[in-house]
Amino acid sequence: MAFDPATLTFNEAGLIPAVAQDHATGEVLMLAWMTAEAVRRTLETRRATYWSRSRQAFWTKGETSGHVQELVEMRIDCDRDALLLTVRQTGPACHTGARSCFFTKVEAGEEVVEA
Amino acid sequence: MAFDPATLTFNEAGLIPAVAQDHATGEVLMLAWMTAEAVRRTLETRRATYWSRSRQAFWTKGETSGHVQELVEMRIDCDRDALLLTVRQTGPACHTGARSCFFTKVEAGEEVVEA
Repeated sequence: MAFDPATLTFNEAGLIPAVAQDHATGEVLMLAWMTAEAVRRTLETRRATYWSRSRQAFWTKGETSGHVQELVEMRIDCDRDALLLTVRQTGPACHTGARSCFFTKVEAGEEVVEA
Repeated sequence: MAFDPATLTFNEAGLIPAVAQDHATGEVLMLAWMTAEAVRRTLETRRATYWSRSRQAFWTKGETSGHVQELVEMRIDCDRDALLLTVRQTGPACHTGARSCFFTKVEAGEEVVEA
């Protein structure tokens, strides 16, 4: 069946959450948001392109930092309301310089930030 | 620093997305939603407990199916608006019987459902 991004389920803001996972290591790198058009652009260019909720603009990951995400595979969940991207990540995924945005863990009730 | 679920960033419905990842394989299993109370319950019971948006009720994963998720680790992203749970998954994670909810991939413009 031909894939049409318009058949995904978007929230009231027209967005769907997309999880980016490192193709090589399986590490979950980040969660960001896409519009139908961002999904289209990502598939067409093979560069992860999100929707920046703060800037209200398309955001091709790595456009300014060079830390691009090359799309390996896009997956849709059973409810069609979440996406999983496996990517080849250049440099760190997080704007803080961390490899993954999920660098804080909860351990015995405390927040522990990993180096 | 002590972790307080109330310090997370929730959407207008009071929810935060939580990605569940298989501890053993690294496979991304599903994306679901939590309230602050669901986060508390998950940490306290070590059983992933989500908020069902369709039923508007807490949903302890596997409560009826037995397909529980034992929490190994909870992580917070840099913006504090997404969670990553690594879990020990009993049985399939997806209500369809699939191991992961992300069993549909987009390949050359087509949707391909994996067995």
